[in-house]
Amino acid sequence: MGKLPELSTKRGPKQGRGVLAEQIVAVARSSFAEHGYASTSMRSVAQDAAVDPRLIGYYFSSKRALLEACLVPPAGFVEGFARVTSSDLPSRGRSLVQFLLSSWERPDSAEVLRSILLTAAHEPIALERLRQIIHGSLINAVAANLGDNERVLRGGLIASQMLGLAMTRYVWRIEPIASLPDNDVIDYIAPTIQRYLTDELEQRPT
Amino acid sequence: MGKLPELSTKRGPKQGRGVLAEQIVAVARSSFAEHGYASTSMRSVAQDAAVDPRLIGYYFSSKRALLEACLVPPAGFVEGFARVTSSDLPSRGRSLVQFLLSSWERPDSAEVLRSILLTAAHEPIALERLRQIIHGSLINAVAANLGDNERVLRGGLIASQMLGLAMTRYVWRIEPIASLPDNDVIDYIAPTIQRYLTDELEQRPT
Repeated sequence: MGKLPELSTKRGPKQGRGVLAEQIVAVARSSFAEHGYASTSMRSVAQDAAVDPRLIGYYFSSKRALLEACLVPPAGFVEGFARVTSSDLPSRGRSLVQFLLSSWERPDSAEVLRSILLTAAHEPIALERLRQIIHGSLINAVAANLGDNERVLRGGLIASQMLGLAMTRYVWRIEPIASLPDNDVIDYIAPTIQRYLTDELEQRPT
Repeated sequence: MGKLPELSTKRGPKQGRGVLAEQIVAVARSSFAEHGYASTSMRSVAQDAAVDPRLIGYYFSSKRALLEACLVPPAGFVEGFARVTSSDLPSRGRSLVQFLLSSWERPDSAEVLRSILLTAAHEPIALERLRQIIHGSLINAVAANLGDNERVLRGGLIASQMLGLAMTRYVWRIEPIASLPDNDVIDYIAPTIQRYLTDELEQRPT
């Protein structure tokens, strides 16, 4: 429940409190992503979740609080990136791509990532949160585990390829990238990530 | 006017017809991108564009037709990609990145690209159009100018890096990528594009 601090300060039915809140967040997340922040109301979420509108008020003090709960990264995501960004350097590019793919293969985690990316398209709060997640879990985590002066730049370049892969393969589903087997994606993309991690950035090795 | 076929089949004030239509499209484009398709109406566009709502009806037979007009790629975009995808192969990676950056440096063209990407987040018609643009102007154009069996795959991998760069630098504005000088972006990203164009894909040259 550390993800949803609103819960501890609000009254609510004692039985099934966490389950109901998770249900409300799942419905709201999908509505924010598909219809946008403006077109989503506490009332429409209540209706879609088939709960009494007053219940949402018990759990979330405002639509903004509900949105914030929807933008929490999936369980284990930040910790997972921390783990792979400090893994063995010569295979770190491969580990990073592998971890990205595994996060998108789990339906619950994919749904959270997808809706954060989509909601960021039209809601400034979501865009700010997306930037924080990319910096915290990816760019700064990559940089913290490298020693040279270009480490933040390396993190940014890695983010540009990893995010492009996620959008192309999972969000926009653009072929042939969307249907490639995971192992192929890793074989093709990992050398790019590895180059951004360890090579001279301006000159291509020949 | 080839971009807006609706114009030729609709009555409308003779004077300034093109200018007014462009004005309406610009307002609608921004509204679709920021507020979504559902939250945009012919009436709200008329209000924001400060024109009589009936004028929009003269130019665009439906909201769907108005959306389609907003999703037309910027002038010269498809032709420009066709040119750089057939440029000198050893420097083609560099030319591709250069062309992408120049398309985003022109405010009019950047606004169109940005709104296509944002509208695709919540509107299936826009996503379908985005897929067509990426295939037509990028993936298939890259593939048409390569000779090996992996050429469509190469186009897809290039799309994943180019789109990730566009989202990171221009749409989400994530640092340090957002503020890098153009020349640095080209120096860092072009070798990746070049690798996707010409190298063995599975093994990194050492």
